[in-house]
Amino acid sequence: MAAKPRIAIDAMGGDIGPSVMVEGAALARRRDKDLRFDLYGDEDRIAAELKRYEKLNRVSTIHHCEGVIEGDAKPSQAIRKAKGTSMGEAVAAVKEGDAHAAVSGGNTGAMMAISKLALRTMEGIDRPALAALLPTLKDDDLVMLDLGANTECDANNLVQFAVMGSAYARTVMGNEKPCVKLLNIGTEELKGTEELKDAAQMLRDADYLPLNFAGFTEGDQLARGNVDVVVTDGFSGNIALKTAEGTARFVTDLLRGAFKSSLRSRIGFLISKPAMRLLKVHLDPNNHNGAVFLGLNGIVVKSHGSASAKGVANAISVAGSMVRNDITAKIRDDLDNFRSHQGNMPEAAK
Amino acid sequence: MAAKPRIAIDAMGGDIGPSVMVEGAALARRRDKDLRFDLYGDEDRIAAELKRYEKLNRVSTIHHCEGVIEGDAKPSQAIRKAKGTSMGEAVAAVKEGDAHAAVSGGNTGAMMAISKLALRTMEGIDRPALAALLPTLKDDDLVMLDLGANTECDANNLVQFAVMGSAYARTVMGNEKPCVKLLNIGTEELKGTEELKDAAQMLRDADYLPLNFAGFTEGDQLARGNVDVVVTDGFSGNIALKTAEGTARFVTDLLRGAFKSSLRSRIGFLISKPAMRLLKVHLDPNNHNGAVFLGLNGIVVKSHGSASAKGVANAISVAGSMVRNDITAKIRDDLDNFRSHQGNMPEAAK
Repeated sequence: MAAKPRIAIDAMGGDIGPSVMVEGAALARRRDKDLRFDLYGDEDRIAAELKRYEKLNRVSTIHHCEGVIEGDAKPSQAIRKAKGTSMGEAVAAVKEGDAHAAVSGGNTGAMMAISKLALRTMEGIDRPALAALLPTLKDDDLVMLDLGANTECDANNLVQFAVMGSAYARTVMGNEKPCVKLLNIGTEELKGTEELKDAAQMLRDADYLPLNFAGFTEGDQLARGNVDVVVTDGFSGNIALKTAEGTARFVTDLLRGAFKSSLRSRIGFLISKPAMRLLKVHLDPNNHNGAVFLGLNGIVVKSHGSASAKGVANAISVAGSMVRNDITAKIRDDLDNFRSHQGNMPEAAK
Repeated sequence: MAAKPRIAIDAMGGDIGPSVMVEGAALARRRDKDLRFDLYGDEDRIAAELKRYEKLNRVSTIHHCEGVIEGDAKPSQAIRKAKGTSMGEAVAAVKEGDAHAAVSGGNTGAMMAISKLALRTMEGIDRPALAALLPTLKDDDLVMLDLGANTECDANNLVQFAVMGSAYARTVMGNEKPCVKLLNIGTEELKGTEELKDAAQMLRDADYLPLNFAGFTEGDQLARGNVDVVVTDGFSGNIALKTAEGTARFVTDLLRGAFKSSLRSRIGFLISKPAMRLLKVHLDPNNHNGAVFLGLNGIVVKSHGSASAKGVANAISVAGSMVRNDITAKIRDDLDNFRSHQGNMPEAAK
């Protein structure tokens, strides 16, 4: 597809706003010289930032927007006032074909609602899902979805998430046949809800799909790095993601406290600083930035609200590789393939 | 209640067996001189261990059992062969009134099934739940339930879990009015499933209960220590518990790798060792041992399968304080109180 991806940036979203979004775009452009940018938001503020990055400036167009979607806006409010806001217009640019993807660091619920309304759900997908990258002990991150877009999911939803998550893993990790598991409370076939058991059966039968379905996995295995894509309903996925974030912070807080507990420990800390930095780099969410809404007729990437310029650049790179790899076509092909085989589906899942 | 709690110990359960279970009992007796023990399992092996602890020996009775419930036994198999096994007989002792509580380090699913069949569910409780203690940044642990006994739960189940979890917090933490929250994917009133919204409404209305209901909490807040009891369905609870365990191991694995990454880091590690030990103590599951099945007509405590003697002693202490504080009566009183107010319940939850 697009040789030169055009990325629409909501320059006002996130905790910091234009300075970090523009710097992130500059970093991303340095990595990938083909990227082009449309920057949505306060014209003067964006222009002031752009002055600092001459090469970025040459490939960027500013689109002035008066409005901003607030961080605490409810999805329903966001939809009503989307027109004219930096987030709403960045997503509209994707809808109109003016840009190939939109990136925002703003309110996740608002962005999901605005994107769903503007871009519509893909044919064959019942519900779009939110997918993100999680760090593991191995070199590759883990793709997990859904992370909160859908509180309750049936077996068909879960199978569609598996198809979309695999397409995402193929795109961002270049893994042509990713290993996919369903998150459950045990690995035996009889464990879990009916939805999970039905979805497992459907995925076992769908061995023609470009993914390697390997059954169930549990919460304690997520970070082990022995699976590429973990599929779950949005409720459990959100609980798992936030529990992982909270626990990582808990352990590093304990570590910090331990290092401060005595003079000896403080000295040990100073000597170990390079090692601590390795740990910090591995856990830094900026290195795993770029949550995506999958299942829409268009590419929308959510950057962490508190992401640094490096984090924003990573989110933009994710958007760029989704455009280049035409993830929407990949998902569509896999879904068509799946539906053409649907005669083999178990009765319960039809 | 019982001035001298009699604890029935399944001496064969767990990864290690009699040596650690007997040593754990000896440690627990040293802390609490009133404890009495009934030890179920291989007579000769238990007797050989008991010889090492003269004072424990004086307050212990051995009950020979030929059978053992295997670690991989399915709950249905476990029920069929329970009679004559160390686990089955320890639970039966509670049923017969020969002991006040049973403690086992064996197969959790088997123990739940055997206990449920032998002790039966309390009147007013629809489903028993598995509760455990999780470490937090504060001094007190967090009580979380359900952790996997019930895959799907309605609002009434969740309210009953709140009542039982609070009684447990009052017992093990001595907190007369524990702060209770429901695990959800957001803290706004409109977030989450209908079951959660109904349960929240019922708990808000039940302000006469000895608990302080404080709404919803999210996965990233669990370790913060700003709540005493977290209530959730068994699916989400199991996912959260295992994700927390896995993430803590992930971060400590990264830390170990970082410390080994250079000579300088190794030296830093040696100097920081006391600090690292503090971290280890805080995260050591032995210091938070004692998962309990709540909602049965009798007290059953599950020790970690890989618990050390100190871990076993902690599980026995939990059992002892549940006996002393008569937790079953506490739960019954709170349930009676709740039911007598049920006229005030919202229509949806009836």
